Amino acid sequence: MPSTLLSRRDLDFLLYDWLRVSHLVERPRYAEHSRETFDDALDLAERVATEQFAPHNRAADLTEPTFDGQRVRLIPQVRTALDNFAGTGLLTAGLDEAVGGLQLPHAVAAACFAWFQAANVATSAYPMLTLGNANLLLTYGSAEQVDTYVRPMLDGRFFGTMCLSEPHAGSSLADITTRAEPQTDGTYRLFGTKMWISGGDHELAENIVHLVLARIPGGPPGVKGISLFIVPKMLVGPDGSLGERNDVVLAGLNHKMGFRGTTNTLLNFGDGQHTPDGRPGAVGHLVGAAHQGLAQMFHMMNEARIGVGAGATALGYTGYLKSLAYARERPQGRPVGAKDPAAPQVPIIDHPDVRRMLLAQKSYVEGALALVLYCARLLDEEKTAPADADRERAHLLLEVLTPITKSWPSQWCLVANDLAIQVLGGAGYTRDHDVEQHYRDNRLNPIHEGTHGIQALDLLGRKMTMRGGAGLALLTGTIRDTVARARRLGGGTGEWADRLAGAVDRVVAVTRRLWADGDPVLALANASVYLEAVGHVVVAWMWLEQVLALPSAEAGDAFHAGKRQAARYFLTVELPRTGPQFDLLDSRDRTALDMRAEWF
Amino acid sequence: MPSTLLSRRDLDFLLYDWLRVSHLVERPRYAEHSRETFDDALDLAERVATEQFAPHNRAADLTEPTFDGQRVRLIPQVRTALDNFAGTGLLTAGLDEAVGGLQLPHAVAAACFAWFQAANVATSAYPMLTLGNANLLLTYGSAEQVDTYVRPMLDGRFFGTMCLSEPHAGSSLADITTRAEPQTDGTYRLFGTKMWISGGDHELAENIVHLVLARIPGGPPGVKGISLFIVPKMLVGPDGSLGERNDVVLAGLNHKMGFRGTTNTLLNFGDGQHTPDGRPGAVGHLVGAAHQGLAQMFHMMNEARIGVGAGATALGYTGYLKSLAYARERPQGRPVGAKDPAAPQVPIIDHPDVRRMLLAQKSYVEGALALVLYCARLLDEEKTAPADADRERAHLLLEVLTPITKSWPSQWCLVANDLAIQVLGGAGYTRDHDVEQHYRDNRLNPIHEGTHGIQALDLLGRKMTMRGGAGLALLTGTIRDTVARARRLGGGTGEWADRLAGAVDRVVAVTRRLWADGDPVLALANASVYLEAVGHVVVAWMWLEQVLALPSAEAGDAFHAGKRQAARYFLTVELPRTGPQFDLLDSRDRTALDMRAEWF
Repeated sequence: MPSTLLSRRDLDFLLYDWLRVSHLVERPRYAEHSRETFDDALDLAERVATEQFAPHNRAADLTEPTFDGQRVRLIPQVRTALDNFAGTGLLTAGLDEAVGGLQLPHAVAAACFAWFQAANVATSAYPMLTLGNANLLLTYGSAEQVDTYVRPMLDGRFFGTMCLSEPHAGSSLADITTRAEPQTDGTYRLFGTKMWISGGDHELAENIVHLVLARIPGGPPGVKGISLFIVPKMLVGPDGSLGERNDVVLAGLNHKMGFRGTTNTLLNFGDGQHTPDGRPGAVGHLVGAAHQGLAQMFHMMNEARIGVGAGATALGYTGYLKSLAYARERPQGRPVGAKDPAAPQVPIIDHPDVRRMLLAQKSYVEGALALVLYCARLLDEEKTAPADADRERAHLLLEVLTPITKSWPSQWCLVANDLAIQVLGGAGYTRDHDVEQHYRDNRLNPIHEGTHGIQALDLLGRKMTMRGGAGLALLTGTIRDTVARARRLGGGTGEWADRLAGAVDRVVAVTRRLWADGDPVLALANASVYLEAVGHVVVAWMWLEQVLALPSAEAGDAFHAGKRQAARYFLTVELPRTGPQFDLLDSRDRTALDMRAEWF
Repeated sequence: MPSTLLSRRDLDFLLYDWLRVSHLVERPRYAEHSRETFDDALDLAERVATEQFAPHNRAADLTEPTFDGQRVRLIPQVRTALDNFAGTGLLTAGLDEAVGGLQLPHAVAAACFAWFQAANVATSAYPMLTLGNANLLLTYGSAEQVDTYVRPMLDGRFFGTMCLSEPHAGSSLADITTRAEPQTDGTYRLFGTKMWISGGDHELAENIVHLVLARIPGGPPGVKGISLFIVPKMLVGPDGSLGERNDVVLAGLNHKMGFRGTTNTLLNFGDGQHTPDGRPGAVGHLVGAAHQGLAQMFHMMNEARIGVGAGATALGYTGYLKSLAYARERPQGRPVGAKDPAAPQVPIIDHPDVRRMLLAQKSYVEGALALVLYCARLLDEEKTAPADADRERAHLLLEVLTPITKSWPSQWCLVANDLAIQVLGGAGYTRDHDVEQHYRDNRLNPIHEGTHGIQALDLLGRKMTMRGGAGLALLTGTIRDTVARARRLGGGTGEWADRLAGAVDRVVAVTRRLWADGDPVLALANASVYLEAVGHVVVAWMWLEQVLALPSAEAGDAFHAGKRQAARYFLTVELPRTGPQFDLLDSRDRTALDMRAEWF
């Protein structure tokens, strides 16, 4: 019975046949590793995800966290699962040995973590946030901060959060008002309210390390006056012992459509319920220099955005596999044209429309997984490529791909979940099957860590234009390299390459046209359409890349035939969707811009 | 404060300015009516929907029906609301005076009912099912059956259901096995299990009238051997008094993602828990002749399909209005290019991307409402047009439009609900706002009363080909009439007309091409793509129709300007989506067909 979480065969294909992660062991950082250690990590992840995370996925949805005014209560399986997860060492899979990490390639670490996201996206959010927090502090924190806060996080004793939004400031971080008042001892006291904080309170760990954006009085207005602070739930002494309660208190839980197992909170800082050292305010420690908070937080946010894309992918993937298993089992109806009502019913996978829905899902979720692992592989390149130019290239390409890797899976793996429900029909709409929960869980992903619209502004307004258009040139040049390799193969692959080449030409043309007169209002008015069109081009590229990693049609097996067919689907059915989108962008359409508020 | 359920201004525009329902009072059936009586009915519907249905919409979601093994329990507000609804007389708004109806035009009756669907789609499902049941029996039932079962339904004392599916037979009705054994007294005894029965049990009414598909032993196999039976929950005596309990028992409730206020049930017929007259089986009464069950049930199903489209539309509409109200109120961020962080934040409706999301919703929900009311107006034409040819024409056009009116709103008003959540951002993902419930409720609509794929087979395999292609010819000819009128206006409207004309040509061409060699397997393999493309063409037509009902740009007000802008959006941004779909159909794409089950 194959797993219905992810396909190990697909992961092996992507990691080894396509991304050739085995070659990484030739680099010093990964010298202690081998295909065997990678396989062991993947085996371990699959096993623990299957045994510890998947079984309580529905229970954590049905019995969501509650707050009695004093404590948050979660079902006990969450803590058990996370304790087991800490025991695997996979939290630090990609980190340096110096901080206790396994120093696995990021591509392998991301594949490992995808098992947990597929099994239980809500429970896996706690370590994901913790790791992002730790990575930020490893980059910007002092040695003391690393010792005090990061090491316990990596040991699984402390968990982490990121505290950006406030009730009146969500997407608009320029408007946050939480203030941090400097104290004579070098610490700060924070006062304010943070909204939408995932993992903001719970009793899953000894402590919670909040990373909080706040303003130091007297600093510049807007985003330039934002600083970043460590605010632990429990104060930590110089020897690492837990001290008294800091003045961070839970003001309430948000009740969500899905993703219910992850507490999402409203937190008050410095409202006076606790007074450490008898003085008001929540004790905070500045990270790095003052007024650098937003840039520092983006370190975590970029990682979190790719993590959101990975989570969306994992939800899409498991929904696909579950609907596939159902379609193989469920008998219903007969082939078109079959006249004998006494003939036995056929499994619904035999109906072309069901195969279409499965093939569409396959093309979305395997395309998305390729993109997520490609980004992780870029991170390996950024960190370990021998040549400076290669590292720089990987860094820039990752910057360009980040908004797409966040948004494309959030949109299309949700569509996959929608199709999974449709394959199951009425059964898929009930809580007896997982697919309805995946659909609800996945609906969060186009919202958090920067909405779809924010990603669109980032891609068109920043990433594609930065450094004189170097981002655009690098992305399109890289895709054209793939096209050139595919054309050499000729045949159907050559035709797909031609189609992709045509789409890349349009990306270049519309980007120039949108910025032709430098009017950002008109250029950005259709940024979301641009994001979606470029996203489809990028995933078409991922499919052509996968085709190039296949053996010849004669040498391949059923898995390879399925890959080729899914590529055909994406290049034939999906990529052409971008035609009208590019036409619209090319016309610099003003329809939404011209609509007046009073006309609604 | 305008209603956030529906827009009365829009309803007035559609009914009076466009569909000219006031002219119907010249026909004998509606001679007692006037614009005033129409307005009174619409006022009443809005008031009762707002006061009785909307307030418990969330409560019925949070506290879904429970079954303790003996009784189903619903929150008491449902019954109160339905008792109030019965008091309005609106259940029978469109029915003959002879059965106590108001004899309102169907277009007006549909508009009235849309208020209830927008306010609380789950509670309004009970009267919708009851009315469909009553209409079927008014057509096919005997006078005695009408007296015994229909009159109490129209009085609000009995409720009705339709019982088609069985656990092993959902979309494949040919496979139902419930059997009906003839008795010497002319009644039947039924044995079997029915699945997915909405409103299948509750204590909201004195009795429940099930319309049940079953087989009389010895009849032909497949759909040709299915008969239709009335099976009341409580037996009814000749004098109308309630007798003993019939052997129809609730075996369980389904627990759904949304639409929770409507009980959805597994029912056992004749399992021996009750034995009326001491004999086994559920007492049933044959409706009409034996073996005509499926054709009879389609009478109810076609009505239910348009009702599903109307419900999907109403959910999309109220979600749109709620996200619009939020966007007008919620301050966040500043215009692109605004440099002063101290300037006040602007309401999010000022951001072009938010306006785009609102305009897209407006184009979907107002387009869908136009389609639903157009169909209701066709029903009026079918029943009351003076010329036989006009009645016949209306009947045929309604047949063709039914799968589209069921499926298009189910797909695109769900997209509208998705956009409504996105406009609210994180808030939209919480249960503090209605939009997340609308999204969950609306997800049912592409499934029940024939899935999306079933509607696609119906449209391409039956409706477009029946009577030598008369359906296709009538639909495209009718759209071309609109095009011709719009071209006479010239300007932007003329351009939109040209675009629509091009799309209609493609509908004709691909339909012929798909059936060119008479291979139904290949023709129908992409039926869903066909359904979606034709649906978009039909709604583009609805938008052009609305434009033709507008005053000139100079004479119109803000409402009219908004209509024109939404039409522009649909004709500019939405209609071109069909280009790649038609290309795919034109190529007779085999991608899904060629995919083998073992390749997944």
